[in-house]
Amino acid sequence: MHLYDVQNKSVVVVDILRATSCMVTAFAHRVDSITPIADLEECKKMKSQGFITSGERNGEKVEGFDKGNSPFEYMGEDIRGKKIAFTTTNGTQAIEKAKQASELLIGAFLNLSSVAGHLKKSERSILILCAGWKGRVNLEDTLFAGALIEQLNGEALPDDDAPLAALHLYQKEKNNLLNYLSASSHVKRLSRLNIYKDIEFCLTADQYKVVPTLVNGNLILK
Amino acid sequence: MHLYDVQNKSVVVVDILRATSCMVTAFAHRVDSITPIADLEECKKMKSQGFITSGERNGEKVEGFDKGNSPFEYMGEDIRGKKIAFTTTNGTQAIEKAKQASELLIGAFLNLSSVAGHLKKSERSILILCAGWKGRVNLEDTLFAGALIEQLNGEALPDDDAPLAALHLYQKEKNNLLNYLSASSHVKRLSRLNIYKDIEFCLTADQYKVVPTLVNGNLILK
Repeated sequence: MHLYDVQNKSVVVVDILRATSCMVTAFAHRVDSITPIADLEECKKMKSQGFITSGERNGEKVEGFDKGNSPFEYMGEDIRGKKIAFTTTNGTQAIEKAKQASELLIGAFLNLSSVAGHLKKSERSILILCAGWKGRVNLEDTLFAGALIEQLNGEALPDDDAPLAALHLYQKEKNNLLNYLSASSHVKRLSRLNIYKDIEFCLTADQYKVVPTLVNGNLILK
Repeated sequence: MHLYDVQNKSVVVVDILRATSCMVTAFAHRVDSITPIADLEECKKMKSQGFITSGERNGEKVEGFDKGNSPFEYMGEDIRGKKIAFTTTNGTQAIEKAKQASELLIGAFLNLSSVAGHLKKSERSILILCAGWKGRVNLEDTLFAGALIEQLNGEALPDDDAPLAALHLYQKEKNNLLNYLSASSHVKRLSRLNIYKDIEFCLTADQYKVVPTLVNGNLILK
């Protein structure tokens, strides 16, 4: 990340398993806003200000928080019109790093075509920021990057070889994502938490049409 | 690189186009040693100490240096038994970053099986350090990493998803490397320098059986 400049760019933050998938699901179910917070304790304190507190560390729900990191927790009436304070191991840290971007969008397979459609309308350069796992490459975020690049193909040129590698991996495996990802280190990590249903859902393209955007530190729908 | 610890590891430094391909070629033609030097001016000064000076910046030979960065320059009688001082845009910087490793080896397609054979004899963890292009991912070094991982398969387990991505890209394209790489940003950069013959040679597996190793700041054959 330190090699890339976010200024004057549209940055798409991606944490497929499961932060950005949860965020997209929450906006599709009419949450008012999500405030991403990198620090766990700071997030916890937001409860006293009327926020729903959400988050995980190392894939597990945090004690004392209202919600964890499964998209199925963000589909009910209880979040409609509410504000959420959200912290995760990787996703909210990625948002923090990219907050100086001209535009910061939340991407997931769940809103893939809507994000692509939004980006196609802009002249700005695009940076797809894969949250990864503690800074390292993971397959699921890389595959999403490939899927988004495929949709943007012909409208954006790669600045280095990372987008090409992501695109080619995605094109190789796009009909087989769930099986393919069973080899990934993070899916193995999460399998121990019995979240197969979450993983399957997070890999489903175009369930929702929302494009969450960061405005003054809060994610909203514009 | 800052995310990975090199201590107690065997590190394989890779800069396929063209630093490590040149180094392997030079050792196959009986150079005595190669001293990698990150700084250009410092490298130039080594001439007065009897070194052959070699290197490039941004893919081009540096004025005043004896040799550039084409493997075909390292096949003659003129290097036999000689010491070379070598500086390149990416390769020698990668060596500098990894010099605290328990063992630092020079890898290229040209000595692929020999490097794999050497690593299989050791119990140490392995880090394949792709020099890339100014710190960013490039396809040719990633494909070499995939080729090496394929040879190590079953004998080493990935620590995160980057080795899996490299392996799967390599397995997709291994019968088509030259065509595939014509899309890579660095090959496009180098094409302007008319080095198609170099690229073709650098992608040839197992031309040589040498495994250059860093000992006290110098690459030698043990």
